[in-house]
Amino acid sequence: MPELRKDPVVERWVIIATERARRPMDFAPEVTTRRGPEVCPFCPGREERTPPEIYRSGGSEDGPWTVRVVPNKFPALHGDPGEVHGTGEGIYDRMDGVGAHEVIVESPDHFAGLGTLPAAHVGEILGAYRERLQALRKDPRLEYVLIFKNHGVQAGASLEHPHSQLIATPILPELVAEELEGALHYFRMKERCVWCDIVRQERRTGTRLVLEEEGFVAVAPYASRFPYETWILPTTHRSHFESLQADEVDALARLLRELVARLDRLFVDPPYNFALHTAPLKAADPEHFHWHLELMPKLTRLAGFELGTGFFINPTPPEDAARFLRRAEAAPGAT
Amino acid sequence: MPELRKDPVVERWVIIATERARRPMDFAPEVTTRRGPEVCPFCPGREERTPPEIYRSGGSEDGPWTVRVVPNKFPALHGDPGEVHGTGEGIYDRMDGVGAHEVIVESPDHFAGLGTLPAAHVGEILGAYRERLQALRKDPRLEYVLIFKNHGVQAGASLEHPHSQLIATPILPELVAEELEGALHYFRMKERCVWCDIVRQERRTGTRLVLEEEGFVAVAPYASRFPYETWILPTTHRSHFESLQADEVDALARLLRELVARLDRLFVDPPYNFALHTAPLKAADPEHFHWHLELMPKLTRLAGFELGTGFFINPTPPEDAARFLRRAEAAPGAT
Repeated sequence: MPELRKDPVVERWVIIATERARRPMDFAPEVTTRRGPEVCPFCPGREERTPPEIYRSGGSEDGPWTVRVVPNKFPALHGDPGEVHGTGEGIYDRMDGVGAHEVIVESPDHFAGLGTLPAAHVGEILGAYRERLQALRKDPRLEYVLIFKNHGVQAGASLEHPHSQLIATPILPELVAEELEGALHYFRMKERCVWCDIVRQERRTGTRLVLEEEGFVAVAPYASRFPYETWILPTTHRSHFESLQADEVDALARLLRELVARLDRLFVDPPYNFALHTAPLKAADPEHFHWHLELMPKLTRLAGFELGTGFFINPTPPEDAARFLRRAEAAPGAT
Repeated sequence: MPELRKDPVVERWVIIATERARRPMDFAPEVTTRRGPEVCPFCPGREERTPPEIYRSGGSEDGPWTVRVVPNKFPALHGDPGEVHGTGEGIYDRMDGVGAHEVIVESPDHFAGLGTLPAAHVGEILGAYRERLQALRKDPRLEYVLIFKNHGVQAGASLEHPHSQLIATPILPELVAEELEGALHYFRMKERCVWCDIVRQERRTGTRLVLEEEGFVAVAPYASRFPYETWILPTTHRSHFESLQADEVDALARLLRELVARLDRLFVDPPYNFALHTAPLKAADPEHFHWHLELMPKLTRLAGFELGTGFFINPTPPEDAARFLRRAEAAPGAT
């Protein structure tokens, strides 16, 4: 059973993923060459290599599919039934590693990417996120679901087949709690959602605006941590991603696809991470929280200064990043 | 002038390092091959390639040296005299990027490492840290000095000559503020320093103990974020690193050298970061803050989950890491 452990000084939880326990010899140098579809467990025809499917889009039960969701074979947290137990060890606190860890296989095509798939297909991926969020809301042990993507070895992807991941946790993660707290503080002062204000200011000034699509905007955030960091936000207040309507899914898919296509143009398939920041499962519909997707290209490395201070050094002003992204033409075949 | 910008939601500052501003074409693929001493600006005989020296250890002004401290040629923050100004931009806040960014060149030998240098030489490096901390305390604009090391390309080092760095900031970094707050909370509840309690519990149980040396201990922390993460702490309460006495420098140097030598043994010169957590410059001598050095081997990559939640996934339980490190014999030639 994986274990959650809390640092006794700062409120930082760590998952000790015992399913993946590693000895020194297991940390092999990284393989950065393309491995191809020959042995890929996510390619069509090898569906039995993954744990049983949770969700499928497009196609019959045994036929072709467009998007699949399966449990992670080496889960960071376990979905076992039963209560979540916490225990102490002297001055330390720990908790059972209960939760969920799922993989969203984004396409049958081993070489597909969010910037090259048709927008309608990207919409099916976003639909899978929505379905899984709605399903996991029913488990009362869960406090939060993070949906994220690691694309490319440098961004932490261990398999090259296009996929995103979902981890559901029995506690509210620190960064989410900090965001909620900061946003509530702002709301109490101004009686407005801080992200609504951000959208308003960025659309007015335009210098950090990257793209707009019906109901959504992509901006380079004012205090960007990473070069070419870009956030996607709905232009009207929405707290939970899973409340997205069908037409909103389509517009969001077009925007996300176009953003990744432009990054692919500028950097030739750069590694990147994204993380979906949505309101906690049990929060009714907070006026102060506005869901958004944070996309972070991995063009530089976090180093000792960031790890020691929580401060980031970013060599690219977001105004420059937004200008280059605005100028980058869409990749051929964009819809 | 570099700029400090604050995220309007979470209290996260970012340095927009305009001295390093980069266009898309400047993010070249990483070079991981050894470049050697031929063109290295830190090798002896090329002292004029760095900005004027701030500190030197061992040797006369123009003669051979063992350790040098110079300003970073591409500083993340500037040491210009004058007041620090803050301004607003709509809902956003920014501040002049005033501070200091220095490089500690650890040895004339391009291929030296903390695990292969004699312990006395490691002591001279630690002595340079102490001298710079004491000197920077005199600038009233500065709130904090972070000393850190990026070793290896994967850990963010852009030059391979052995060096560490120092960044002084005009605000207290978020992680330091969180540590101070958490430690104060613990102190108020228990009237004891939390790190004193950690040292006591780790020495008693022994499962996460890595090494001991007169007055210092190396432990794998209970909630380790990274495989083989190791913290070095003084066994008696000390708030400021710069209060170290000469005999303490010697013992600490032996411990740090031995720890890095053991990591080199287990992983063959692994990339790593370390960050020195010491009390803020202006804090008199807090009973609740205990300086410590956090060493983090870079064996895995931070990915979307960590960036989205502030939660870490660590595949190696610290008890296993400590056992492997205890068993790893010292490298030949250890003093």
